[in-house]
Amino acid sequence: MQSNTSHISIVLCRPQFAGNVGAVARCGKNMGIDRLVVVGNPNLDPDEMYRRATHVAAGVIDGIRHVDNLEAALADFQYVVGTTARLGNARGPVVSPREMAEKVAAISQENRIALLFGPEDAGLTNDELRFCHLAVNIPTAEFKSLNLSHAVMILCYEIFAYRSSGEGRFVSKLASSRELEGMYGQVASLLMKIGFLNSQNPEYWMMHIRRLLSRTGLYSKEVKIVRGICRQMDWFLANGVKEDKKA
Amino acid sequence: MQSNTSHISIVLCRPQFAGNVGAVARCGKNMGIDRLVVVGNPNLDPDEMYRRATHVAAGVIDGIRHVDNLEAALADFQYVVGTTARLGNARGPVVSPREMAEKVAAISQENRIALLFGPEDAGLTNDELRFCHLAVNIPTAEFKSLNLSHAVMILCYEIFAYRSSGEGRFVSKLASSRELEGMYGQVASLLMKIGFLNSQNPEYWMMHIRRLLSRTGLYSKEVKIVRGICRQMDWFLANGVKEDKKA
Repeated sequence: MQSNTSHISIVLCRPQFAGNVGAVARCGKNMGIDRLVVVGNPNLDPDEMYRRATHVAAGVIDGIRHVDNLEAALADFQYVVGTTARLGNARGPVVSPREMAEKVAAISQENRIALLFGPEDAGLTNDELRFCHLAVNIPTAEFKSLNLSHAVMILCYEIFAYRSSGEGRFVSKLASSRELEGMYGQVASLLMKIGFLNSQNPEYWMMHIRRLLSRTGLYSKEVKIVRGICRQMDWFLANGVKEDKKA
Repeated sequence: MQSNTSHISIVLCRPQFAGNVGAVARCGKNMGIDRLVVVGNPNLDPDEMYRRATHVAAGVIDGIRHVDNLEAALADFQYVVGTTARLGNARGPVVSPREMAEKVAAISQENRIALLFGPEDAGLTNDELRFCHLAVNIPTAEFKSLNLSHAVMILCYEIFAYRSSGEGRFVSKLASSRELEGMYGQVASLLMKIGFLNSQNPEYWMMHIRRLLSRTGLYSKEVKIVRGICRQMDWFLANGVKEDKKA
């Protein structure tokens, strides 16, 4: 089984250099991924983008979706792959590009996938990595800082080159980022209300909860169940008596 | 077993753009390969090279070995890996970047390896590919033309990421390109002399001979044997009687 590349988009978060965006468009086109989303920085020089994309990938530049903020950019994706050069406890478990390609091959059959990359200088923040179901680290020698388009190329290449030996396992439709964020918002507000989350630093535990819930990939139905639980809890907190569930 | 990256050099044949050379230096440094050879085009803008290399890889630019012609550039390498976007009979068998990485891991333990890339517009010519022991093709979608530094990155990444599962097989010291070219020159002149090679197009059959001899990788001792055979033939052609070998 190969990835369904028509279900995959490259999402560049606050890219600083138009040349890199152009080079990314070319990479994507080389590997059959021609959807590109740019978050923030709407003033990239178009000439430089088109020049580096080459005329063959000009259509990828024409089709760029410009979005103001990351949450909106990711709303309609069901699976978000984030890249990080830094490893550390706060960043959770990371996989290699090859392990990522294997997962993406299965998930992309039925789901829209975002490959998310941070800005050239600093990469994705911990806050931005929270949106990701999977974090990928590209192995390097001591000098870890890859050019943005080179990082994109390695991921796209691994996805394109991946062929599973067997039939593989289809992954049916997962919840979208919009559904998940709605759920996490509701969970956080509930946990804040009950004092589980410290209002000084609510994100610390939420990060662990997100990691736990996103690792397997949630289905829409499961998101509805979690939200149903939260709603029920809220109702109980407000009314102080146990609501009878139907049946 | 991992590759011994200190035995690996990137060789750029007639690169056209200084920016690409800088980006290649950065790629190499990311993946632990910091020897760079530039063949031809000595007038590349240094500012642009340093800018794209970033300050961390400035040392790679400082250390570039500039050479006039490809034969001289490759003389001291024992194994040459060439990249080609085009496939066809004239180009012989090609392998994937991953298969290349597996071979390089074994061969690099005891041998100096050149990763050879052609110019941005046209790639390596058939004549230049003749120097290669192995030809690699990077799989792509319909749009096959990769940016030079992206092609370099994919090969370097595969080499760096490759870990054989077992102990692997060490490949002991192979003949250098200088030894091989000396041998091929001698073989060609002999074959021309005996009318096996057409003086209009001597390269056609030589290409097949090179392919046959280079596929396995020749040891110095074997090169000496082939040359000994040629010498003996030459002597015989000149003297017309069979020379007695000692013992």
